[in-house]
Amino acid sequence: MGKQEIRYAAKVSLKEPANSQSNLHNRWHPDIPFAGTIKNEEVVKIECVDWTGGQIGNNDSADDMKNVDLTCVHYLTGPFEIETAEPGDVLLVEIQDVQPMQDQPWGFTGVFDKKNGGGFLDEIYPNAAKAIWDFEGIFCSSRHIPHVRFPGLIHPGILGCAPSAEVLETWNKREGELITECAHMDRVVALPPLLKSVHAGSADGELKEKIGNEGARTIPGRPEHGGNCDIKNLSRGSKVYLPVHVKGAKFSVGDLHFSQGDGEISFCGAIEMPGVITLKFTEPSFGPGRYIYFEGFSVDEHGKQHYMDATVAYRQTTLRCIEYLKRYGYDDYQIYLLLSCAPVQGHFAGVVDIPNACTTMGLPIDIFDFDISPGTPAKKMDMGSCAK
Amino acid sequence: MGKQEIRYAAKVSLKEPANSQSNLHNRWHPDIPFAGTIKNEEVVKIECVDWTGGQIGNNDSADDMKNVDLTCVHYLTGPFEIETAEPGDVLLVEIQDVQPMQDQPWGFTGVFDKKNGGGFLDEIYPNAAKAIWDFEGIFCSSRHIPHVRFPGLIHPGILGCAPSAEVLETWNKREGELITECAHMDRVVALPPLLKSVHAGSADGELKEKIGNEGARTIPGRPEHGGNCDIKNLSRGSKVYLPVHVKGAKFSVGDLHFSQGDGEISFCGAIEMPGVITLKFTEPSFGPGRYIYFEGFSVDEHGKQHYMDATVAYRQTTLRCIEYLKRYGYDDYQIYLLLSCAPVQGHFAGVVDIPNACTTMGLPIDIFDFDISPGTPAKKMDMGSCAK
Amino acid sequence: MGKQEIRYAAKVSLKEPANSQSNLHNRWHPDIPFAGTIKNEEVVKIECVDWTGGQIGNNDSADDMKNVDLTCVHYLTGPFEIETAEPGDVLLVEIQDVQPMQDQPWGFTGVFDKKNGGGFLDEIYPNAAKAIWDFEGIFCSSRHIPHVRFPGLIHPGILGCAPSAEVLETWNKREGELITECAHMDRVVALPPLLKSVHAGSADGELKEKIGNEGARTIPGRPEHGGNCDIKNLSRGSKVYLPVHVKGAKFSVGDLHFSQGDGEISFCGAIEMPGVITLKFTEPSFGPGRYIYFEGFSVDEHGKQHYMDATVAYRQTTLRCIEYLKRYGYDDYQIYLLLSCAPVQGHFAGVVDIPNACTTMGLPIDIFDFDISPGTPAKKMDMGSCAK
Amino acid sequence: MGKQEIRYAAKVSLKEPANSQSNLHNRWHPDIPFAGTIKNEEVVKIECVDWTGGQIGNNDSADDMKNVDLTCVHYLTGPFEIETAEPGDVLLVEIQDVQPMQDQPWGFTGVFDKKNGGGFLDEIYPNAAKAIWDFEGIFCSSRHIPHVRFPGLIHPGILGCAPSAEVLETWNKREGELITECAHMDRVVALPPLLKSVHAGSADGELKEKIGNEGARTIPGRPEHGGNCDIKNLSRGSKVYLPVHVKGAKFSVGDLHFSQGDGEISFCGAIEMPGVITLKFTEPSFGPGRYIYFEGFSVDEHGKQHYMDATVAYRQTTLRCIEYLKRYGYDDYQIYLLLSCAPVQGHFAGVVDIPNACTTMGLPIDIFDFDISPGTPAKKMDMGSCAK
Repeated sequence: MGKQEIRYAAKVSLKEPANSQSNLHNRWHPDIPFAGTIKNEEVVKIECVDWTGGQIGNNDSADDMKNVDLTCVHYLTGPFEIETAEPGDVLLVEIQDVQPMQDQPWGFTGVFDKKNGGGFLDEIYPNAAKAIWDFEGIFCSSRHIPHVRFPGLIHPGILGCAPSAEVLETWNKREGELITECAHMDRVVALPPLLKSVHAGSADGELKEKIGNEGARTIPGRPEHGGNCDIKNLSRGSKVYLPVHVKGAKFSVGDLHFSQGDGEISFCGAIEMPGVITLKFTEPSFGPGRYIYFEGFSVDEHGKQHYMDATVAYRQTTLRCIEYLKRYGYDDYQIYLLLSCAPVQGHFAGVVDIPNACTTMGLPIDIFDFDISPGTPAKKMDMGSCAK
Repeated sequence: MGKQEIRYAAKVSLKEPANSQSNLHNRWHPDIPFAGTIKNEEVVKIECVDWTGGQIGNNDSADDMKNVDLTCVHYLTGPFEIETAEPGDVLLVEIQDVQPMQDQPWGFTGVFDKKNGGGFLDEIYPNAAKAIWDFEGIFCSSRHIPHVRFPGLIHPGILGCAPSAEVLETWNKREGELITECAHMDRVVALPPLLKSVHAGSADGELKEKIGNEGARTIPGRPEHGGNCDIKNLSRGSKVYLPVHVKGAKFSVGDLHFSQGDGEISFCGAIEMPGVITLKFTEPSFGPGRYIYFEGFSVDEHGKQHYMDATVAYRQTTLRCIEYLKRYGYDDYQIYLLLSCAPVQGHFAGVVDIPNACTTMGLPIDIFDFDISPGTPAKKMDMGSCAK
Repeated sequence: MGKQEIRYAAKVSLKEPANSQSNLHNRWHPDIPFAGTIKNEEVVKIECVDWTGGQIGNNDSADDMKNVDLTCVHYLTGPFEIETAEPGDVLLVEIQDVQPMQDQPWGFTGVFDKKNGGGFLDEIYPNAAKAIWDFEGIFCSSRHIPHVRFPGLIHPGILGCAPSAEVLETWNKREGELITECAHMDRVVALPPLLKSVHAGSADGELKEKIGNEGARTIPGRPEHGGNCDIKNLSRGSKVYLPVHVKGAKFSVGDLHFSQGDGEISFCGAIEMPGVITLKFTEPSFGPGRYIYFEGFSVDEHGKQHYMDATVAYRQTTLRCIEYLKRYGYDDYQIYLLLSCAPVQGHFAGVVDIPNACTTMGLPIDIFDFDISPGTPAKKMDMGSCAK
Repeated sequence: MGKQEIRYAAKVSLKEPANSQSNLHNRWHPDIPFAGTIKNEEVVKIECVDWTGGQIGNNDSADDMKNVDLTCVHYLTGPFEIETAEPGDVLLVEIQDVQPMQDQPWGFTGVFDKKNGGGFLDEIYPNAAKAIWDFEGIFCSSRHIPHVRFPGLIHPGILGCAPSAEVLETWNKREGELITECAHMDRVVALPPLLKSVHAGSADGELKEKIGNEGARTIPGRPEHGGNCDIKNLSRGSKVYLPVHVKGAKFSVGDLHFSQGDGEISFCGAIEMPGVITLKFTEPSFGPGRYIYFEGFSVDEHGKQHYMDATVAYRQTTLRCIEYLKRYGYDDYQIYLLLSCAPVQGHFAGVVDIPNACTTMGLPIDIFDFDISPGTPAKKMDMGSCAK
């Protein structure tokens, strides 16, 4: 009678190494074994380590930041089997809460050394630096940046479903071409698959090696599944629509942020923390919010990978929004005009996750006199035409 | 006893050609004669024509949009002498209201032909198109885009003070270099000075010719003075801080928008309209708002002009914000970390005004436990250090 | 082709006496002749005088406030015939804009003398007082209350349709009984019909006398039609649903406020001004706002008139909200529980319009997973039951 | 190095009876022994039982609600000694977080039987009823009120410092007089001290009996210390200023609500729950929020106790706000005018806690051009005068 305590779909340890925990992984690959099963409509809690897997300490030196091993980061919790999810489905995930770990009420923000990671302003600020943030309920403050204190807009940096083999192949090809093209540049423009430090959950032996050789690195978000999108407003109460590429979805989540600014500019720029996220895997319903947000990345409409180009990303974001609104009978030019003049919100999301800049466009749903929310069936109407 | 009706600093005619009205102009140049004088602390109303100077009609054809003469646009009202303003000053302007013309309650949004203006998506949408919007109080709707209706976030697209001769020279040099570099590209990347169709207010003869030969085109916003920044939230109630480059400031304003989305993507993408703006030229005071917004353009910190690069623009926006906060004693790395993780708002402003993309960063002032508003003197404090 | 300038359904003069203008009136009565006709779906502008009909001057003396003739106030513009409106209909009015008069950019706030009008705190503050407010675009400030300045939440204090003869009789009976009951008190508790100073629009002779003898005073709002509700948030963008009691609706509006606090405590407590309101008489459509607001007055569910009892008014507000939600199949107790715990907004509206206190309850529509907006047909669902 | 886990100042058991736990109490009295000590600037977590002390079950019957023992409710956690707090001080408490108990993710809303507690609408709805709410992160929903789901505005219903002996005597005298006056009415108008079921923390024997005979019941909020104010917006991030009446403050907190509507109309009307609150006992700092909220109760300025009169309460709220603003040099009439016309927020807080209605007024601080926040010293300025 009445609901019981919310189930933990996964617990993690902050004491053991991340790469020894079988419900964590640090690559995107369809063959990483399931770490558990989640029912439709189920509410679960999922614990996450911080994205460096505990490499950073609560101290006053930036040496750990400078020497961080960037092959051992972005440990995600999962992948979870979502019952009945099939390729082609859209998985709706509601973010019901995000909390720091009870017994670790602090997080960190870092600048990497230009030679080991870099960041948005690394030509101007090439050295490593770090700030520790203490959490007091919804607030945070730092002994390293005095006279500042604010409530965190707490959110996950990464969530998404596993790519199919085909999608993964597309990623590797596209990013490989960029690496080839930019071979003459003196900077790392993308991160190809890497056997070193691969952690593939419970996979071992040959399978693990395969995953290491093929698996996509988790740093960039990618247009086909989201991933590391670093959207600061994807906070408590948000609903996310994720494309499913493999049977059971293989959903993963991690990289929790106590707070972040648009752009996450210093790369390790959010307030990174381990914590617990409460999610519901649910059906769409009426009126969940006033904006629908679309993402876009610096992969253009021909599938070409650009390097950190926010202009390309914003163009893609716009095209996705146009695609969405065409379902109702508007033609391309009507929507192009509309997105130009209606009060859409155009934000930088992440500008540091090589090679993909991520931008978002928030479309206000109240400007329409019919319901355009994702959960309702789209009916084409006669929309006439703009002047041509 | 009590204040009288607010003075009109300028009235315009919607019937006469824009280029015959001596209080309008379509170039940025220090020698355009004053169109009037405004006192310190004075509140004035200023009428503006639409930015095409009336070339677009309220009809159902896009021919006017297709054939628009782009040498005859961006007519600004001014320049006004602001009493006591001297080079090196910062001029504070409060936007108290913006209204459409009483007798012209409509505006337009357009897509230019790819061969005559283009826009953000012109490779995909190369044809001209147009939508007419009817205004009903704060709302607008269009017979060309049915089932949509919203309150406008009304604002000026352009405001700024005239460049000095030195600043103007920098602009022409910088943009000229970009044109040279990109000579091989098949698209217009910047607009050099142009004698054709120059309108220099009351200037005539040789002076007008000089202004035509040297004057900066008004399409791009530029980091040294703002100009065509197209920031949708720069609406009623906003305060703007503008650098003064010449004696008397030579302030101009125009390109009023009933509404606009972030990016103004279709180029003529806002709801363009003639109208009247109420401004106060005023002193700073306590607590004007909860965010301070910083602009950045695609001119990098070495003065190099990039072509429509929003990533460069956002980097510049960030650097301006860092510069501002250093006044209080924080060091660069502390601020770099802070802007990464505090809930700053990173927006696209204009992505169509060649060659400058414009982006903004909103810094929340309530995260500080001291007053960082622009009107208060900055006092350096001992801010310690982040981990290094 | 394209809409023309918005039609003025009524213009007023600020120079001529209010009681000589035939499109003004200061009583609620079904027989006041129509002052004009408004079409369905039409957008119109309506000019209004300030509620004292110009008795208050822009000066530094409160004598005009002290000696104000309270029989000559609340001049409303109208009544307008709304085409096709029939008794039993609900009239939907959208407030599209409210503006001060172009040539009178100021308003006033007053305290009446305890012996001539009084107010919420008249036992403590018995003297007349006045502040003049200057308008600068959306802002106002006062030489009488320095160091204060704010944007006005501009709105009409009064709007409603005429009562039928039956409704009017109910009002007179109910308020008459209160006057009788309170005969021993030393204060005015309600205002009965009054022949003196009646202004009945174009009515003259016997009809005017009849209206004077029977017509309801405009000071109190009343549950059957709204009237003087003084709701500060009933501002630009709001939609109001008004019951129609007579053929053609006989809609009137007036008492424009540049700003007001909840309660309008000093009685003449808003920033009173003449001005122009833009209204649309329209059909319901999707998604008008996030809250539905219900009014309640200090007339209890047995029809008994209480004197300025906000507790009674809030109880009535609650009961109206319960009535509304029963349309969907919820039972009384479910709703009673829901309104107790969901984040409804309970506000004081007017606490000075004898004998009716007016309170409001804002019901958030997003807490429901179906559409409860007034424009959509209500369908009873099986809602089960709460524990009983 | 770095902060540790936040200290629990008190833990409670949901299994043991509330009246056997020595850090709980259910009366306001200066002699209840301290339940612990909290340092200045300390952040602590405090666990609380639900206000019925666990009398209500997660089931589908309202019998527990009907038969609830109302002498055994409102168990508060405390009283805590706040180091250095002295009578006459103002204690600043920041609410940093409120959470349900991890292992009891549900709460309840109830209607009492008219004969045992009643509520705001008990003449119309005399029967007991109950709804159980399940919590999913920040959201709640109920099997008893289907098709409704919302994020809770989580907050404590009760917090305050102990009365001094003098203050307590005032309360008992004032409420006693009301009981005498209303002896002829057939309803309970106030709750006098009661020996039955008194729980005085660790006090025993004679001291406990004394507390039972003199101690104030916790149902009504009271103007001298706050107490049961039931303000729905007193949520995470709020700062509260509490008068200190006894050495060490003797601060208590309880009656946590997952959500509540303005008025908490059904009496047991919030979503009641046990939980944990995170508080900081701190110094004022710059810029805490945009509104300062003032409370008022139905005790008039002569000290007379009225019965549930929201009009009286709102008048008191207004007078408190006037008192506050006089510190800056404004005279009474200037403020009276200002509160009438500036956009102050006037809310119902609690309308069910006999005999005190509680109302609030939110004063926007940004309308002033100087800093009026409570933490800054008030300096009298020359404010001239309004018209008189």
